[in-house]
Amino acid sequence: MAGKTIRVTVWGEFRHEKKNEAVRKVYPDGMHKAIQAGLAKNADMSVRTATLDEPENGITDAVLAQTDVLTWWGHTAHGEVQDAVVDKIQKRVLEGMGLIILHSGHFSKIFRRMLGTNCSLKWREVGEKERLWVVEPSHPIAQGLGEYFELPHEEMYGERFDIPTPDKVVFVSWFEGGEVFRSGCCWERGFGRMFYFRPGHETYPTFFDANVQKVLTNAVRWAAPNFYGQHPCPNTKPLETIHSVDPATGKAGVKQ
Amino acid sequence: MAGKTIRVTVWGEFRHEKKNEAVRKVYPDGMHKAIQAGLAKNADMSVRTATLDEPENGITDAVLAQTDVLTWWGHTAHGEVQDAVVDKIQKRVLEGMGLIILHSGHFSKIFRRMLGTNCSLKWREVGEKERLWVVEPSHPIAQGLGEYFELPHEEMYGERFDIPTPDKVVFVSWFEGGEVFRSGCCWERGFGRMFYFRPGHETYPTFFDANVQKVLTNAVRWAAPNFYGQHPCPNTKPLETIHSVDPATGKAGVKQ
Amino acid sequence: MAGKTIRVTVWGEFRHEKKNEAVRKVYPDGMHKAIQAGLAKNADMSVRTATLDEPENGITDAVLAQTDVLTWWGHTAHGEVQDAVVDKIQKRVLEGMGLIILHSGHFSKIFRRMLGTNCSLKWREVGEKERLWVVEPSHPIAQGLGEYFELPHEEMYGERFDIPTPDKVVFVSWFEGGEVFRSGCCWERGFGRMFYFRPGHETYPTFFDANVQKVLTNAVRWAAPNFYGQHPCPNTKPLETIHSVDPATGKAGVKQ
Amino acid sequence: MAGKTIRVTVWGEFRHEKKNEAVRKVYPDGMHKAIQAGLAKNADMSVRTATLDEPENGITDAVLAQTDVLTWWGHTAHGEVQDAVVDKIQKRVLEGMGLIILHSGHFSKIFRRMLGTNCSLKWREVGEKERLWVVEPSHPIAQGLGEYFELPHEEMYGERFDIPTPDKVVFVSWFEGGEVFRSGCCWERGFGRMFYFRPGHETYPTFFDANVQKVLTNAVRWAAPNFYGQHPCPNTKPLETIHSVDPATGKAGVKQ
Repeated sequence: MAGKTIRVTVWGEFRHEKKNEAVRKVYPDGMHKAIQAGLAKNADMSVRTATLDEPENGITDAVLAQTDVLTWWGHTAHGEVQDAVVDKIQKRVLEGMGLIILHSGHFSKIFRRMLGTNCSLKWREVGEKERLWVVEPSHPIAQGLGEYFELPHEEMYGERFDIPTPDKVVFVSWFEGGEVFRSGCCWERGFGRMFYFRPGHETYPTFFDANVQKVLTNAVRWAAPNFYGQHPCPNTKPLETIHSVDPATGKAGVKQ
Repeated sequence: MAGKTIRVTVWGEFRHEKKNEAVRKVYPDGMHKAIQAGLAKNADMSVRTATLDEPENGITDAVLAQTDVLTWWGHTAHGEVQDAVVDKIQKRVLEGMGLIILHSGHFSKIFRRMLGTNCSLKWREVGEKERLWVVEPSHPIAQGLGEYFELPHEEMYGERFDIPTPDKVVFVSWFEGGEVFRSGCCWERGFGRMFYFRPGHETYPTFFDANVQKVLTNAVRWAAPNFYGQHPCPNTKPLETIHSVDPATGKAGVKQ
Repeated sequence: MAGKTIRVTVWGEFRHEKKNEAVRKVYPDGMHKAIQAGLAKNADMSVRTATLDEPENGITDAVLAQTDVLTWWGHTAHGEVQDAVVDKIQKRVLEGMGLIILHSGHFSKIFRRMLGTNCSLKWREVGEKERLWVVEPSHPIAQGLGEYFELPHEEMYGERFDIPTPDKVVFVSWFEGGEVFRSGCCWERGFGRMFYFRPGHETYPTFFDANVQKVLTNAVRWAAPNFYGQHPCPNTKPLETIHSVDPATGKAGVKQ
Repeated sequence: MAGKTIRVTVWGEFRHEKKNEAVRKVYPDGMHKAIQAGLAKNADMSVRTATLDEPENGITDAVLAQTDVLTWWGHTAHGEVQDAVVDKIQKRVLEGMGLIILHSGHFSKIFRRMLGTNCSLKWREVGEKERLWVVEPSHPIAQGLGEYFELPHEEMYGERFDIPTPDKVVFVSWFEGGEVFRSGCCWERGFGRMFYFRPGHETYPTFFDANVQKVLTNAVRWAAPNFYGQHPCPNTKPLETIHSVDPATGKAGVKQ
């Protein structure tokens, strides 16, 4: 994507922020606005937002057509995302669009749809320390990070995380309370790239963290497509002369 | 599964056989009966069948509870399989049940549900020769086969096949008309194993072929589960003393 | 391997035990004898040992020919293993023999030979607690274990572990001092299966631990081959008539 | 690597061209010069060559230090490449350098060193047609190609190819004589990327083919590193207070 602007849409559920004072104190404009602001610092990205309560959940055909990478944070209202919207996002990822799923988005319809698994995990909310180890230092998503980085307070997610074996596990988390987690996971589906990133609970300022912002910047660049394509299922002519006689039709071979 | 009987359910769409004389001539009792007969030769398997037009598409809770490995052939009526049945099969695969998808089942709801991709491909029906090369001779599904085996007449499926990169590609097909195909593909989802096997067009006696029967026998044994489990998402207590003070709650740490 | 006895050779460097009183107190007969004793409890295994200071490092052609699975523990004398022995082991793994590398064997010649990478890692010897999380509960190597198991005192190994991305990561370790590690890793090379298992420092009674013994038992069964084969590079005749005229030879095609 | 020049070293065995008139007619300046010329058309690459009979096989420390991507074609004299040179290349790949292995380089010391397998295959030299199918159209190495491309005359390589399961198989070949082959394979080892590309027999003008040149251009860009790193094995201090008492030393825990 060198030289091209990456068009990012940051999707936020935007419910906790309206109802919960503790969340609003951390993210007064909504989590999506904080994620947007972090990405918008990059000169190679143009970043819009979309939220659940907008028409068509904010994911209209026009928005999708102008989105290279979609980031997704949801938690309390996964069930309210319209199935037709999930269908459209899946189709667009298979055509090439990048998809970045954040934290509690592990239980979103679109993540489970893309992976086919339950995406369940263990969890605990006590504001404990998380240390993310960089397991693949040469991966594009790990560029500019040290051997690890820490978040002083986060919700814990623990294994077993029910996902298909990732192509690459970039980060593995250590938690103060004794658990581990595959916190940065890459897959490809169709022509699109997908990344799951674990941190990002609504009561902690995780999306203002410099290392987290670096990860999201790297992930957007990694997931940005160089290629878009369709998935037709064509009836095709042979490229070579066929000498076999089809017993079903009795026809004596097929010529090019 | 050594010493245990593997309970197999062979699912067949069973529509072509009723409507199409050419198919009925090849499979007078239905394709599912031919597949069943091939598997039933194995002393370690008990094999039942289920078909689309039975109540609940033949996949009741009772049937699923007594199925270790489900094989699936469908073609003309994928859309008639009930979504609730697909939901139940997916859940059971994630719990450990093996799933073997045959030929035109590539476009079945359950295959696309498990993989998250479009599963499209190229195709041609002229009864050409197919040669399946054994790419992984040490894989359990390839046991007892030679370096390759041939089917004198088959429908052609050509790449690109829109699937997630398989864990293992056991067979790659050469077609007389000039195409290639990843014809034997393995994945794991949740606690279940999945195998896709390409051959099996309704107008050819593929399921009577000795090599094909060997592949299906091997695949059933490979996919039979040693383990069944659920996918809960529990709130768990810490295993270690947590010293951090949660800024969200102001609580001074959590003790075990 | 149902019904067949699995022939296991437990290789031990057997140097620390001779020179170091602390190690001898934990493993008076040598670590290899403890590993052997754990495996020999299984009725389906016959278990011999081999050590560095035996002729040909204990790995003669006769021993290899009678070994289905080889386990390997070394630490202080990797360089003394003869290259010819490493060559022979590599060849045998590619033919089908299982190979299980234990703990400090990460720097053995044979492990680095099979993987092609440096196999480096972080380490610390303070006898801290290790908790091994089962990331793949349905994997054969995890059978009979709970969600995790603990070792009260172990050497720490930390990421990044320089290995090719494993086919499956069965265990991920949490360490008291703040690190994580991919502690149970599976690969296939040629026709052989390989497993790396992290715990097993010479000053702790790890190989007497019931969970560790269960892991090794499972790993031996998983790695035991159903198939042995060679890797020839044959000049082969065409299976189809070739119509092209070779410009290099001017010959008008090749007939079967 | 956007904006940076990729420094490529094209290594050629350069023996056939000196001894064999048929080869010299196709590649009068040597195969390496043809490969170099194809890559040198790209403004973002500076391309040098190195050959077997130069001092240190042309791969001095200075050359390696200035090489981002190394391409390798050898056939008749694999055994003459010095082991010390192979050691240095391996180390450099693990640090981040890209490595592209061409055709008969499948049996080179460096390819087998990196992969740990035998890398054997079937072969036949009759100048038959090869059709390379693009299995991963969205992969960077496939950009700008159609659904397939053909080479009118090539040596045949057939499965089974003894390699570790690739991360991605970008191309699968169909051969006129009836075989298939995984012709474009990607791996990562250490911090380096590796690509194997099948075509390139010395008696055919394959390296002048426009599609082949496009593949090599794409492969160089894909393999060019964004990251170089070492693989130390450090003894590290704990990041957390350790409360366990080491039974080996009797020390009452270790503090940060």
